[in-house]
Formats: sequence, structure tokens, C-alpha cells
Amino acid sequence: MPNKMKLTAADLLSLFNPADSDQFLAHFTTRHYPPKALVYSPFEEKNLVFVVKSGRLRVYLAYEDKEFTLALLEPGDVFSTHTPAFVQALEGSEILVCSTATFREAVARRPELSLTMVKVLGELLKNSIETIEGLAFKDVRLRLVDFLLGAAAERGRASTEGTVVQLGLGTEDIALLIGTTRQTISQIVNDFIKADLLRKIDRKTLLITDMDALKALREL
Amino acid sequence: MPNKMKLTAADLLSLFNPADSDQFLAHFTTRHYPPKALVYSPFEEKNLVFVVKSGRLRVYLAYEDKEFTLALLEPGDVFSTHTPAFVQALEGSEILVCSTATFREAVARRPELSLTMVKVLGELLKNSIETIEGLAFKDVRLRLVDFLLGAAAERGRASTEGTVVQLGLGTEDIALLIGTTRQTISQIVNDFIKADLLRKIDRKTLLITDMDALKALREL
Repeated sequence: MPNKMKLTAADLLSLFNPADSDQFLAHFTTRHYPPKALVYSPFEEKNLVFVVKSGRLRVYLAYEDKEFTLALLEPGDVFSTHTPAFVQALEGSEILVCSTATFREAVARRPELSLTMVKVLGELLKNSIETIEGLAFKDVRLRLVDFLLGAAAERGRASTEGTVVQLGLGTEDIALLIGTTRQTISQIVNDFIKADLLRKIDRKTLLITDMDALKALREL
Repeated sequence: MPNKMKLTAADLLSLFNPADSDQFLAHFTTRHYPPKALVYSPFEEKNLVFVVKSGRLRVYLAYEDKEFTLALLEPGDVFSTHTPAFVQALEGSEILVCSTATFREAVARRPELSLTMVKVLGELLKNSIETIEGLAFKDVRLRLVDFLLGAAAERGRASTEGTVVQLGLGTEDIALLIGTTRQTISQIVNDFIKADLLRKIDRKTLLITDMDALKALREL
């Protein structure tokens, strides 16, 4: 749904057409940012709403030495800085900025503007939930990686595509061994498969296709 | 902004008025749930959109033995199950369900529906980011709690309002001691102040107002 709701660059430009009778966006001001420039930091108090006119921006959280990217903004995307996230221009970018109050009026007159907010918020939410999952699973994921690397070192067999590992155990037994649930193991294994780290051969056999990446997970 | 955008129960009911000429919501079906009933689990494949007609529902993530509440839904709220979250009825609740495709058409005709989506998504996102912050800061927060409890045990002075602790160190020095940044310490201390665990007396002195709650943080 989100993508379908995005205003196209053409729709967006038509909203900014000066011939528009209600001078809809007269209160927006244009700001230009060079590549890498920080557009917004959560330590600023002032809330803004902006529409991306050109370029590409990254929305991210930063804690300690960790960064979590929540969204990439493209022309036509609307973003509100109510979230405590950083916004950085990835390339030279132009944004159209207004106050929250102005935007609220704009949306009252042009409800379709909120469709693009739904799209951006949906993307932010999806990536936030993935981040939560990653953090919540961190300990058990590390234990599973250790288990897989141990099994590979002990019983792994080199093949042209990677290392074939006979686990000798089903998901339920691995879960017991690691101290988690079958569901969590399945979920993490599926994440690893999606990330092209391994493939399932059968119920008790895996092919580790990217051993280095799997080892690197222990350093995260 | 989000609250202002919420459809009121009255607005909502008017959308469902059978006299409505475009029979806007003819494709919605009503479902009833008793208190505590699970309305949606992320293990179901089918995506739905629903409007809360009555009652109250909780949206939450569950991993291992941890649960993270992301939103409470109330009458007039619109929710889409595209997010991998659980939805549970907190009390007896009625929801109006339709397919994603139907909802997309409905929004095209009634863009104001997306305003309530913005409100719900905003709440989900805010709580998701708070959850990420909590998880990302978990280690350093624990170290800070240990430092504060240690200082209280060593140099704490009982007062009518709690325990006055002369830290003897500024934020910068505490950060160095704990192995983090000044900014992170400030952020966590502010979280503790908001949660009524402590108050600042001056730059190097704190009043711990809820020692038990502070100790309980070590068990999380």
C-alpha cells in the first residue's frame, strides 16, 4: 500500500505551482543542503515538516557508537521531525520546509498530502520494528551463530557453494540447547537465509554460503 | 499534530451511515472480540485493515519472553496489519475489517481516512523508537545504575525526600568512568528524572527519590 500512496514528483510539483489559486504552499521555504550535510538533529528543539523536492536524505537513530537507518527519503516524501531522529542529506538535496501549524492547515485543505506521510511513516515503522527485533534477539542470535560455527568446525564439509553442516538436530532440539523457543530459532534462521548467509538443505542440514559474514555477526 | 488528525467517533460513525450515498464502507465486515482475545498474530499471512468501532486494543511486539507495547487503539483508529505485531483486545471490542485493496479504494475517495492512519502510525513509531533507545542503551544504563547505587551506598545521605548523593563528578567524568559519552549520560539521567526516579540538586548532586525502582532496573 505505501508505495501506491506516494505522491509522484509531478503531483508534488503541481502542488507548488505558483498559479495555484489558494497559494497552497506560500509558507514553505526552500533549503539547499550539500552532500553529507546534517539537516536535522534531535537535539534541536524546533519541530519542522518538510517535503523533499530533490535529492535523497537518510533518517537515522544514533546511540553510543551505533546507528540505525530508519528510512531513505526521496522527492515527494513528507517528513516531520517529531521523531527523535537525525536527518542527513546523502546527496545534494532541496527540501521545502514549513511549520507544523502551516502543514496542519495544508493537510486540512489537501488531505492527499497525508497519503505520502502514511508511506513514509510506514517505512519508518517497518525499519524500526526490524531494529527492535535485531536488538531483542541479539543474545540468542549470538548463541545460534556460535552453535553453527561450532558445528561447522566439527562436522562441516566443504562444497563448491560453501560449507555443508549436518546439524544432527532439529529446530526444537537446537532451541532447547540454546535456551530459546523453536519459533525464535526459525525466525533467526530465516533472517540468515534472507541475508544470503546460509541455505537449508533439509530439516537437519544447512549450507553456510557466507562463513565470513556469519563470523562477522559475532563482532556486532 | 497526530491527535488533531484523529477522526472522532462521531465522524467515524457518519462514514458508516447506511444512508451514505456511495455506500462507502459496504465492504467492511464487523468482528467482535471478547476481552483478552488475540485479534491478529504476525504468524498469520493475511493482511487486513481495520477501523476500531468500540473498545480498546493493544498493538505489541513479542520476542522470547519480552513484550513491547507499541500502541493502544481506540474507537476511530485505523490499523493495518502490515507490521509484524500482535493485536489483542483489552476489553470487549468491535472492529470493522476490510481488505487492503478495499481500503486503498476507500482512501482514494475519502483521503481524510489517512489522517487517522497518520495518527496511529505516529504513535507506533514514537513507541518503537523509545523501545529501540531502551534496548540500545541497556548496557550503559545498567552501568550507570550500578554507579549511582554504589555512590548512594558509599556517600548517600537520607533526607525526607529520598537519598541525597554527592557524586563528586560531573557528567563528563561519569561518562569516562562508565565508558560512554556525556550526551548518553545526560539522556539516561533525563529519562530517570522523567520517570520520577531521581532529581538534580546541582551539577554534581542528585536526589534519588525512588531507590527501589532504581534497583529494580537491574533486573530488567
